This record gives sequence, C-alpha cells and structure tokens, in this order.
Amino acid sequence: MQICLLFDLLSPYAYLACKALPALAAEHGASIRPVPVLLAGLLNHHGQKGPAEIPSKRLYVFKDALRSAAVLGLPLVPPRAHPFNPLLALRACCLDMSDGQRLELVDALFDATWGGGPGVTDPEVIDRLAADVGVPDASARTRDPVIKQRLFDHTAQAIAAGAFGVPTLLVGDELFFGYDSLGHLGRYLAGDDVIDGDALARWADLPVGASR
Amino acid sequence: MQICLLFDLLSPYAYLACKALPALAAEHGASIRPVPVLLAGLLNHHGQKGPAEIPSKRLYVFKDALRSAAVLGLPLVPPRAHPFNPLLALRACCLDMSDGQRLELVDALFDATWGGGPGVTDPEVIDRLAADVGVPDASARTRDPVIKQRLFDHTAQAIAAGAFGVPTLLVGDELFFGYDSLGHLGRYLAGDDVIDGDALARWADLPVGASR
Repeated sequence: MQICLLFDLLSPYAYLACKALPALAAEHGASIRPVPVLLAGLLNHHGQKGPAEIPSKRLYVFKDALRSAAVLGLPLVPPRAHPFNPLLALRACCLDMSDGQRLELVDALFDATWGGGPGVTDPEVIDRLAADVGVPDASARTRDPVIKQRLFDHTAQAIAAGAFGVPTLLVGDELFFGYDSLGHLGRYLAGDDVIDGDALARWADLPVGASR
Repeated sequence: MQICLLFDLLSPYAYLACKALPALAAEHGASIRPVPVLLAGLLNHHGQKGPAEIPSKRLYVFKDALRSAAVLGLPLVPPRAHPFNPLLALRACCLDMSDGQRLELVDALFDATWGGGPGVTDPEVIDRLAADVGVPDASARTRDPVIKQRLFDHTAQAIAAGAFGVPTLLVGDELFFGYDSLGHLGRYLAGDDVIDGDALARWADLPVGASR
C-alpha cells in the first residue's frame, strides 16, 4: 500500500503530517510517496482563500499547529517570512530521484522551513540540501521546462483527485485532508474504516434548500 | 469555567461538538453556554466559501464527519436538503430561557437536523421541540425584532472574537476551532496547554515574503 503525501512547504500542518506519517506508514506496512503541489493553484482553482489570508485564521492555525507540534514533541518555528515563494523548493522536489531520496529531501526542506532552519527560498540552501541526498546542481536544473511542467501537472492531478488543500493524503482514490485526519487514515489502513455508504450516497444526491 | 459553543445547525461538525462537549465539560468541571451564530455571516465577513460550497470539499467533509460519528458511536444522517435555511431555528435558540434549557433545545435541534429527525425548517417542529424544554410559542415569538437582532449581535461578537467558522469553542478569550480541536481544548482546560509564546509572537509580526 502506498500513501501519497500531497504537500506545499507553506503549510505547517503539512510539516506535521510529513513528520508523523513515517511511523503511521511503518505500523501498517505502507510506503510514502511525497508529491509537491502548489497550494496557491488549489486555492485559485476553488476560488478560496488560504488560512494565511484571513487574519484571525492565520493566527489561530499557527497556534493550533504549535499545540499539535508540542503533543508530537516537535519544534515549530516561524520561517523568516510567510507566505514565501515555494516554487524553487517545490520544483527541486520534482527532479528525477528515487522516492526514498525525495522523502529525505522533503523532510529536510520542511526542517529548513518550520524546524528553525534557514528557509527554502535561497538557491544555495536548496543545492546543499539536495546534494545531501545525492541530487547535485538542483537549483540550476529546476529551470528545465520539463521540471516546471511536472509541478503544474502534480497540482492539476491533485485537483482532479478532489484535493482542496494541503496536506492531502491519498491511498488509491481515498482522500484524507489535513493533519487532523491521520487518525482516520490509520483506521482506513488497518481495515477499520467505518463509513455509512447509504448516508454518503444520500448526501451526494441531496437537494439544496437554501443558498447565501 | 465556561465553554461557549458557537454553532450553526448547518454544520455536521457542530453537531459532533455539541454531542461530545458535555462529557469533556463534566471532566473539567466546566459549564457550556451554547451561542447560535450565522455561519453565512462569518463567511460573508471573511469573503470565504463554506465547505459545502466547494464540491469536492462538500463530499469530503461529510465523509470525514461520518468517520468521526462512527468513532463516537453517534448516528449521522443527511438532512432532507442542505444547505437549508437555519434562521428560524437559530432565532428560537435566542429566545429568553436558561442556559440549561438552551443546551437541551440546541441538542434536540441538532438531533432533528443530523440525527435522523425531521429537520428544523418547519415551524411546527420548532414549536414542539421548544415546548419540550418549557419554551412555548417559539416560532411566533422569533418574529420579535429584539430576537432577530440578538442572532446578528451574536454573529458580530463571534467575528470580533476572531471566529471564522463553526463550531468555535471559546473559553474566555481563548478560541478553539472545529470538532478536531476538542483534544487541545481538553488539555487547555486541564492546564496542560503548551504554546511557545515566543514563536507565536514572532509569527504575529512576520513579514510577507510573497503573495498570490
């Protein structure tokens, strides 16, 4: 079984999911495939504001993420600026490498972003972290149109799969959204997922009784 | 200690919070004050779409709520239409009554909405459920401009307190959002809330490095 971790480095919840997922995956004999996507692309598609674009929500989500990080025993440190431009770092995650190398790189990029590191907007940082996992000349090679296209394709595929935010966890067609969904994901992987199929089918066909 | 439960009957997560909160409150010796608010008012204020207004999110949140309901051992049944007009029912929750009566009424209205009941758009249903908790002639009395204003005031106060969705749980000025935040709320009530105040202060003052 494979868990696809759809992420953007902008999200502290995606950082928490990246950190918590390996233990969950190991428990259920699953592998992890990290898939970089552009949160801005998802939000643009759905005509939605991101959590950081609503002032009271921006403050709350970081506080909530701090609480979850404390429960996990993880550091959570604000980056030097936020939002920042994640394009270079996400494109570096699209370079040719093994899934194992990619997971190591993504983990290092999340540490650089949210774990008190130097951020991920400086090409020298990207080059160093990518070289550490055996991928040389990363930032120069992200200029390849094939690599740029790959990030857009991942984002389009995420939208087609029903994603509306990050982190999104996909197991086959089954989608789980948010760090808080890891409990449900664990039950799904264990074969203990309880869904009332009749209720879900009725919900999908429900008439609209009012709108704003 | 008092927990304010800011809710709109439109939200299945608010239903779950209403059902799970009494045990949590009892554990920590806290009381519950239910406060009806208009989700549409919060969304309009923040220029945000609700979960039911994004098709893939609409389907996902109900599925996620079904999963959480199953974990709690609660029924979760789609209402006859959704979204529906919650005004009459929310205004009935604004009538003069004790907090205990209000909590009973809100619980009954949530059962009528999400627990397989007849919905909450029919004045006869509202009258019957309100009479059951000792509040007569409810639907007729919701026409009082004082009652209508009360719902708008609750919504404005929710926005002023930083609310951006429902359910929102308030303990004094401390805000918790969503059914998934009940774990953090419990630790807060127990005095075990861990927040890195320095990190939070830095986050509040962070420069914006990029925008969409």
